[in-house]
Amino acid sequence: MAASSSATLPDFARGSQGLLPVVAQDAESGTVLMLAWMNRAAWEETLASGQATYWSRSRQAYWRKGETSGHRQELVEARIDCDADAILLRVRQTAAACHEGYRSCFFRAVASDGTVRVVDTRLVDPDDVYGG
Amino acid sequence: MAASSSATLPDFARGSQGLLPVVAQDAESGTVLMLAWMNRAAWEETLASGQATYWSRSRQAYWRKGETSGHRQELVEARIDCDADAILLRVRQTAAACHEGYRSCFFRAVASDGTVRVVDTRLVDPDDVYGG
Repeated sequence: MAASSSATLPDFARGSQGLLPVVAQDAESGTVLMLAWMNRAAWEETLASGQATYWSRSRQAYWRKGETSGHRQELVEARIDCDADAILLRVRQTAAACHEGYRSCFFRAVASDGTVRVVDTRLVDPDDVYGG
Repeated sequence: MAASSSATLPDFARGSQGLLPVVAQDAESGTVLMLAWMNRAAWEETLASGQATYWSRSRQAYWRKGETSGHRQELVEARIDCDADAILLRVRQTAAACHEGYRSCFFRAVASDGTVRVVDTRLVDPDDVYGG
C-alpha cells in the first residue's frame, strides 16, 4: 500500500444513499460518543473546518454538531477503515455528545436477557440546552 | 425512563434492510476496533453465545467473528444509543480485529488535504491467518 493516495477515500459510493457511518470517539478518554452519518460534502466540510459536521437522516439536512447546543466536536484526527466505508473521528467534545444530556449516546447497556439499563450519569439537563 | 424495558431494543426496523451499525471497541484499551452490521438474529446470537456475530453485507451471510481466523471477540458489554439504532460492543479481542492484520480496522488517518497515511503497526501477517 502506498504511504499516501488521492482524495477519493473514503468511498462514499459504498454507502446506502451515499452515506457512511461515522464513529465519534473522545480523543482523550477513548469513550465512544456517538454514531452518526456523513455524505461526501459533510466529510469535506469536517476536514476543512475542523468541526464535525454530519448528515441528519431524520431531518435530511447538514448538521454541524453543537450548532444549537454549543456541544461542539473539534476534530483531532480522522481515520478510515480497511474497506474505506466507515469513518472514525477522534474529537474534543464540549460537554455532552448526546441530546439527552449524557456524555455519550451509548448510555444504556443491554444484558443477555435483553434487559436495558442506564449505566452512565447524566451530565446536563437537556431542557437547559435545547429549551424546555 | 424506566430502569429496564422489554427485549424490543435495539430497534432493527430503523435500519436499512433491518441492519444496524455496530461499533466494536476493545473493552480494556478503548481502541475502536471495527464497524460492522447486525440484524436481529445476529444480535440475539451475540447475546446468547457471548461471541460477536455479525451480518456480512458483501457475503449476505452470518459471520461469527474469528471463525476462520481465530481472532474472536468475546462480549464484555453491549450498549445501545439514545435512538436505539446503533450498537456498541465492548469486547475482548483475540489478536487482530482487521483482516489486514492490524489490531483495528481504522489503521489509516486522513489529513485535512485528503492524504491517507497508515498510522498503526501491523500485528500479524494476513497470509499466516487466511492462507497466502
